[in-house]
Amino acid sequence: MTRQELINQIREKKTFLCVGLDTDIKKIPEHLLKEEDPIFAFNKAIIDATAPYCVAYKPNLAFYESMGVKGWLSFEATIKYLNDNYPNHFIIADAKRGDIGNTSSMYARTFFEECNLDSVTVAPYMGEDSVSPFLQYEGKWVILLALTSNKGSHDFQLTTDENGERLFEKVLRKSQEWGNKDNMMYVVGATQGRMFEDIRKIVPEHFLLVPGIGAQGGSLEEVCKYGMTKDCGLIVNSSRAIIYADKTENFAKVAGEEAKKVAEQMAALLNN
Amino acid sequence: MTRQELINQIREKKTFLCVGLDTDIKKIPEHLLKEEDPIFAFNKAIIDATAPYCVAYKPNLAFYESMGVKGWLSFEATIKYLNDNYPNHFIIADAKRGDIGNTSSMYARTFFEECNLDSVTVAPYMGEDSVSPFLQYEGKWVILLALTSNKGSHDFQLTTDENGERLFEKVLRKSQEWGNKDNMMYVVGATQGRMFEDIRKIVPEHFLLVPGIGAQGGSLEEVCKYGMTKDCGLIVNSSRAIIYADKTENFAKVAGEEAKKVAEQMAALLNN
Repeated sequence: MTRQELINQIREKKTFLCVGLDTDIKKIPEHLLKEEDPIFAFNKAIIDATAPYCVAYKPNLAFYESMGVKGWLSFEATIKYLNDNYPNHFIIADAKRGDIGNTSSMYARTFFEECNLDSVTVAPYMGEDSVSPFLQYEGKWVILLALTSNKGSHDFQLTTDENGERLFEKVLRKSQEWGNKDNMMYVVGATQGRMFEDIRKIVPEHFLLVPGIGAQGGSLEEVCKYGMTKDCGLIVNSSRAIIYADKTENFAKVAGEEAKKVAEQMAALLNN
Repeated sequence: MTRQELINQIREKKTFLCVGLDTDIKKIPEHLLKEEDPIFAFNKAIIDATAPYCVAYKPNLAFYESMGVKGWLSFEATIKYLNDNYPNHFIIADAKRGDIGNTSSMYARTFFEECNLDSVTVAPYMGEDSVSPFLQYEGKWVILLALTSNKGSHDFQLTTDENGERLFEKVLRKSQEWGNKDNMMYVVGATQGRMFEDIRKIVPEHFLLVPGIGAQGGSLEEVCKYGMTKDCGLIVNSSRAIIYADKTENFAKVAGEEAKKVAEQMAALLNN
């Protein structure tokens, strides 16, 4: 998906919500456990109920891998279902990959050839040759970790170097030598509040993938106040607060209602 | 596996070689393609031929994931074969994972419960709560990226902070608050030469996993000169130079001979 197509989707649907598919066999409604593939059955119902209210889906690879081969089957079935039925939704493999060039090329093959996803989250620690193999695919995106939503983000990402630049700022600045606003986004946690101002000084136009509203406690209003651009420039993710909003046979309907609520807030914020 | 068990293995076998199972369907001998699971058939033959000369195996997850479900089946078959037949070999999932606590817990479940591996490589960018879930398993190890073997290691890992500490040094120092020499090792590339001296100042006793000899050009002698401790303290990996040393039906025999050559160099270096 191109940047312009993504922007068009956001404008048409008046939402910039991403639904995170952190699907845990231990948390899905019990009645699904009799299905042949309970994880896929859960995802399919969640997707059908939330699709009108979001522009993106973000399966978190950890949750699928934790079930081994079965989990990969569920992951691939989910991606195929999205590609077949919702081709206008942007699909993010939340995988936080990154390795030497030779190995990153293999990861890129996984997510962009074996599975037809739009983007993958990548960790920057290993530098340019760990990121650039993912940038070799037309219409595909790297979403690079910059300033994450968790407590541990303070351990290294905020370290100030001898020139007064913090590590996440160096990642933002340096990575623009490798990609651009048409093939690179950044992960910035919703819990980071006013830091979005500092981020926008370095990447005024890039899209940011923002996890951390909902279960992690970040504020959507604050994210928009300090992070939104004229093209929106934000994809805001919610996982647990939407997909586990209800644990009964009604789970999908309730998830849809939760997604709708967030989308309505987003529509209002887009209008401002 | 405990630290003492690993040291005992190294002393008994007089080798600290790790064979990297970066198994690529495009690079294995053609005659294997008629096997039901060519990747596993290749790994099994390589393992049987090299086991006397190494103390560890390191499957690189990217290579398995790039084949989707089939790849995971090959990966799991390989781990099962190692656990059943070579229980004294240390098994490393080279996966470079790391995410918010909730998600890292799922990755830990994958590698330590779903698959019975000894250790997993983890990226430090997201800080403490991305690493600590992997440290909750008795007898299991985190191998944290410190100073990697690739060119991109210069982009961020060598950044000096306002106190004169480089990022990889901060990772070494800070992570000792989370784990210790009994459950944590560090990745340091063989291409980093004398930097091992600086690393040993911060982690004098920790084991280091050292990739980068062979295809990447690092020197085993230099690694030992600057990085070896009284307990050895090194696991040195070679992947491509061993497993792809020959492309004929003789591939396993030649891989065994290559591993033996490296092990003989290692025995001499251990004697010094």
